[in-house]
Amino acid sequence: MKILVVNPNSTAAMTDKAVAAAQAVVHSDTVIVGATGTGPASIEGHYDEAMSLPGLLAEVAKAEAAGIDGIVVACFDDPGIGACRELASGPVIGLCEAAVKAASMLSTSFSVVTTLPRSIPVIEHLIHGYGLSHQCRRVRSAAIPVLALEEEGSGAREKVRDEILRAIEEDHCEAVVLGCAGMADLTEWLSAETGIPVIDGVTVAAKMIEALVGAGLKTSKISGYSTPNKK
Amino acid sequence: MKILVVNPNSTAAMTDKAVAAAQAVVHSDTVIVGATGTGPASIEGHYDEAMSLPGLLAEVAKAEAAGIDGIVVACFDDPGIGACRELASGPVIGLCEAAVKAASMLSTSFSVVTTLPRSIPVIEHLIHGYGLSHQCRRVRSAAIPVLALEEEGSGAREKVRDEILRAIEEDHCEAVVLGCAGMADLTEWLSAETGIPVIDGVTVAAKMIEALVGAGLKTSKISGYSTPNKK
Amino acid sequence: MKILVVNPNSTAAMTDKAVAAAQAVVHSDTVIVGATGTGPASIEGHYDEAMSLPGLLAEVAKAEAAGIDGIVVACFDDPGIGACRELASGPVIGLCEAAVKAASMLSTSFSVVTTLPRSIPVIEHLIHGYGLSHQCRRVRSAAIPVLALEEEGSGAREKVRDEILRAIEEDHCEAVVLGCAGMADLTEWLSAETGIPVIDGVTVAAKMIEALVGAGLKTSKISGYSTPNKK
Amino acid sequence: MKILVVNPNSTAAMTDKAVAAAQAVVHSDTVIVGATGTGPASIEGHYDEAMSLPGLLAEVAKAEAAGIDGIVVACFDDPGIGACRELASGPVIGLCEAAVKAASMLSTSFSVVTTLPRSIPVIEHLIHGYGLSHQCRRVRSAAIPVLALEEEGSGAREKVRDEILRAIEEDHCEAVVLGCAGMADLTEWLSAETGIPVIDGVTVAAKMIEALVGAGLKTSKISGYSTPNKK
Amino acid sequence: MKILVVNPNSTAAMTDKAVAAAQAVVHSDTVIVGATGTGPASIEGHYDEAMSLPGLLAEVAKAEAAGIDGIVVACFDDPGIGACRELASGPVIGLCEAAVKAASMLSTSFSVVTTLPRSIPVIEHLIHGYGLSHQCRRVRSAAIPVLALEEEGSGAREKVRDEILRAIEEDHCEAVVLGCAGMADLTEWLSAETGIPVIDGVTVAAKMIEALVGAGLKTSKISGYSTPNKK
Amino acid sequence: MKILVVNPNSTAAMTDKAVAAAQAVVHSDTVIVGATGTGPASIEGHYDEAMSLPGLLAEVAKAEAAGIDGIVVACFDDPGIGACRELASGPVIGLCEAAVKAASMLSTSFSVVTTLPRSIPVIEHLIHGYGLSHQCRRVRSAAIPVLALEEEGSGAREKVRDEILRAIEEDHCEAVVLGCAGMADLTEWLSAETGIPVIDGVTVAAKMIEALVGAGLKTSKISGYSTPNKK
Repeated sequence: MKILVVNPNSTAAMTDKAVAAAQAVVHSDTVIVGATGTGPASIEGHYDEAMSLPGLLAEVAKAEAAGIDGIVVACFDDPGIGACRELASGPVIGLCEAAVKAASMLSTSFSVVTTLPRSIPVIEHLIHGYGLSHQCRRVRSAAIPVLALEEEGSGAREKVRDEILRAIEEDHCEAVVLGCAGMADLTEWLSAETGIPVIDGVTVAAKMIEALVGAGLKTSKISGYSTPNKK
Repeated sequence: MKILVVNPNSTAAMTDKAVAAAQAVVHSDTVIVGATGTGPASIEGHYDEAMSLPGLLAEVAKAEAAGIDGIVVACFDDPGIGACRELASGPVIGLCEAAVKAASMLSTSFSVVTTLPRSIPVIEHLIHGYGLSHQCRRVRSAAIPVLALEEEGSGAREKVRDEILRAIEEDHCEAVVLGCAGMADLTEWLSAETGIPVIDGVTVAAKMIEALVGAGLKTSKISGYSTPNKK
Repeated sequence: MKILVVNPNSTAAMTDKAVAAAQAVVHSDTVIVGATGTGPASIEGHYDEAMSLPGLLAEVAKAEAAGIDGIVVACFDDPGIGACRELASGPVIGLCEAAVKAASMLSTSFSVVTTLPRSIPVIEHLIHGYGLSHQCRRVRSAAIPVLALEEEGSGAREKVRDEILRAIEEDHCEAVVLGCAGMADLTEWLSAETGIPVIDGVTVAAKMIEALVGAGLKTSKISGYSTPNKK
Repeated sequence: MKILVVNPNSTAAMTDKAVAAAQAVVHSDTVIVGATGTGPASIEGHYDEAMSLPGLLAEVAKAEAAGIDGIVVACFDDPGIGACRELASGPVIGLCEAAVKAASMLSTSFSVVTTLPRSIPVIEHLIHGYGLSHQCRRVRSAAIPVLALEEEGSGAREKVRDEILRAIEEDHCEAVVLGCAGMADLTEWLSAETGIPVIDGVTVAAKMIEALVGAGLKTSKISGYSTPNKK
Repeated sequence: MKILVVNPNSTAAMTDKAVAAAQAVVHSDTVIVGATGTGPASIEGHYDEAMSLPGLLAEVAKAEAAGIDGIVVACFDDPGIGACRELASGPVIGLCEAAVKAASMLSTSFSVVTTLPRSIPVIEHLIHGYGLSHQCRRVRSAAIPVLALEEEGSGAREKVRDEILRAIEEDHCEAVVLGCAGMADLTEWLSAETGIPVIDGVTVAAKMIEALVGAGLKTSKISGYSTPNKK
Repeated sequence: MKILVVNPNSTAAMTDKAVAAAQAVVHSDTVIVGATGTGPASIEGHYDEAMSLPGLLAEVAKAEAAGIDGIVVACFDDPGIGACRELASGPVIGLCEAAVKAASMLSTSFSVVTTLPRSIPVIEHLIHGYGLSHQCRRVRSAAIPVLALEEEGSGAREKVRDEILRAIEEDHCEAVVLGCAGMADLTEWLSAETGIPVIDGVTVAAKMIEALVGAGLKTSKISGYSTPNKK
């Protein structure tokens, strides 16, 4: 099985981290194919998200032509998921959808910890669309730029941990979802530090796509996700 | 006051029709500035929508730099509204949001009539996000491609009228929203033929933007729609 | 175009303030017609609201007979809107509906600041009905009686400002809606003091009615808002 | 225990019918006190409802002064319930709230059969406010004026029965709520004819008020339903 | 009329308290029949709830065979209500459904105070299912084990009172629902100490069942609650 | 990895079918351990579900003691999931939750086809709890008893196919979820006959548990699903 992990921003280091996180959890016979977008260096808000789409969709189309089995869009804002599903025959998932649906199976309620405050309403809107607002206690921000997660000594990981501890104390949540692809390598440490399930979108999205493909399931092609019309 | 009416698809004839529809209803001292995207010739589904965004956002940025007061995104799928709001200082609205919110003020329930079946779930998702599912009886399709609305003798207008009549009969709706920018010139005829308020997004969006600008209101810049971060 | 701004309470000073606020924002060729109810001196809760209705509806019927084009009910509790819509041929809107729908177009989330705590559940119920609970962070009260807004030296305006500042700090809202018609003259000052969009219902309702009338739209007459049955 | 059954319309025959229906089900030591409004002869829509309120509230105030224990507002549109609760110390309920909450305890889903189509959106809005839309299959109308229920030979009762049979067939509902106070005397016959629980608001409202009073419960007076402010 | 009050846990003292609370409020001609389950000594979470069901259902079946008129399941987690309704011909209710629906008639918003934190999500899930999340400010725990309510000198009643006072202060709720059958004997004292309606599920459930039976209503038998299929 | 597939009813043939369906899709190094309950022969409604729980939980406890990694409860009514999660350290899922969450990732809307009409409200209630009502077009029944699926020549599989075809035609759904564990062996044939994704709960639940375990995730133990309290 071949799964595309496509990072819609243009920071190759984040792609590498996501590919590594995915490869670490899939079965030995599953190949993770990485791809990097041509848009902004990080996705912080609606504009960045929009500008990432053509590069993202080009990678999806290329992978589809090469016979990919399933696709992970490695960004927590779930950019262009509907468009990717129109291009793909196999299943497609973004990090937010994968992570919050997993969280909803492992706890009665969860909070999300993301990077910047401006991403909070984006994520709240996604969760409302996924129907899980009643299980989401709160979407929080650790007030760090996305790229600080890539810098040694930025103190970013400690800020994420402290925000998780506040979430447990104030929100009475039972699990925490990490609201940024760039946090994938912190999951184990954060879970150990905080004592609750900490859910990283990259890991869980890769496993869910592997599961859907393994169950023989494909994206429906009869209406909302049918192949784009020829013009 | 200057209002941008930007058609995110690349069919200039649709831009002209939208500009004309907007100009016909705004005050004599309001200038409608038209702009056309560089994406697909029509927006039929998620992929087309995604591919229209860079062209749309370029027009918005250009207009913003030139001092526009408010912006109508002239497509019923409300593409890139969040991203446009990040770029704009004034108010921004898409056709679906404008039209369904207007419909919710004029009737206790409404139905939407769009072009192709594949647009139905896109519109349902938008209406769910706008919180108006409980007032929307049904989203229907007249089963016509968007561009048929531009062709003489395609029978498209009669199909739209017949679908509205079915909506009245079957959905017991009190108003109908036209679910495509390309139907703007049919509004008056459709209302006369069917006897209920028929709401065209272009017209109502232009008037709502004129109203918000006239009330001195601007897009909030403190979180979700703050200016895109420099990278 | 002639728009009725009808204040359902019997305090003429509040009518004057509302008429002035509306006249200040509409086009020069739009005439604002003021009218004052015969009910309680202020509307603070369900009982006051109910007792204001016959006077309100009499004014609406009179204006309708005289050929009014659209109607603003100048109270934030949106009293009798459905009944007014049955009497009116043109569009009718209350302050809460106009303001929260405007807020939903200018921000991803907003809070409301009203006068007395007893109005909080009334407004929450309205917002639930309008489908915007998911965008409303919180309905707050500045703990001032409605008529204190009319008194020099009551400290009311400072209390409203301080409550808005608390809303920004605690609710992380991006805009604030003023939850009382009597706050209309404070809007500009409050926005300057707090740095976020502050939305006054009177202003925005007048502009929205002007927009709907200008778009050629009328209240649907085929079911929920049909003309009252003769007995 | 004394319970007020107040009919907000001015048709004394409907009051008599409601009082009789209530008296037939309460305990022998519960006194039903009837009262009739001064508004329209029947309540068919928002305007009639609004015009019924002053008369209704006058009766409630009078009964409260005389020491009533609980109050049934005998109309299915639940007019002025919030206002009545502000005046009352004991519990207050309208027919719709009582009947749909009872239906939600006796079945997994129900439909409502009312008189005129114009009442459908009024009732749908109430049920949305009560949070029971997910258990309400459909609100239907038998297309009869309210007062036809009072006329011999109008065929009204057969029309109601036929609509209930259609509700069972088409909606797969498990119970039916009668959406008009004037249907109270048909309940037993309709249940026998259709084989499912048919729930009349008058009966169930009287019993629920008797239950709440008997449990020692009163209307909360600390915020939303606090006594009207003196002006 | 005979009403079964069945305590699904195996602590007979709690049954006695519930029977006494019910008997104290029903009419003199209503007989309360008590029954005790065979499951865990208290119901604290999903597992305890599940393990209580066979014993609970055996008591219900026995009572049904003996001709019971209605049934109260005397536990706030509403265990096995659907199953009991399949067995019963008369109405069946659990404490949570009865109490929150009563609270929704007496106040615009309420909070719940239960025993242990682990019961909070169970109750939140129930309230979501009953459609009353929008009226429930918060579900709180007094952090006491269920059986502490049965022990002299445990300080449990003071903890419950203090939590109610915090709910009034922090949640701005207008009424409080007691989230455990074992609190039934504290209601009067708590209401006196806190000044707001304090609603005990046992009392209100017994009265509601008495009301539904008295109104001639029975559980619908045509689909969701039809008699269990013979195997 | 070892996954328990526990059939809560007592029909061993259904366990065998579920184990086979699960084993067919998991990786070669994943061991499926089957277990059969001691309750009713099939689960048709709330009573059967309740009576299946002690046997189900005994199997879960046994497997947990023996070191199981994850658990599938192989019934579409998702019986006792919360209780199982309290007993388990690893992830636990029921068929309905797994299948509808998968369907929500593969289509914009889906319908469910179950066996008997009495199961429809059970499933609707589950889907409401999972927050996916807005993506579920309709829950339908093929009007066949569960055990007919085990009988040669019962015509059951054709009835299921015909109901799926009606769902496509009438509901405009894009995928169908099979609402009974006993349909697991029909999936491939039904998908071929109908041309849309047909989603079987057993298969997808086994793959999702394999995915969650593979991602290193466990059930949260800090509140709602904490280990049952010792009594």
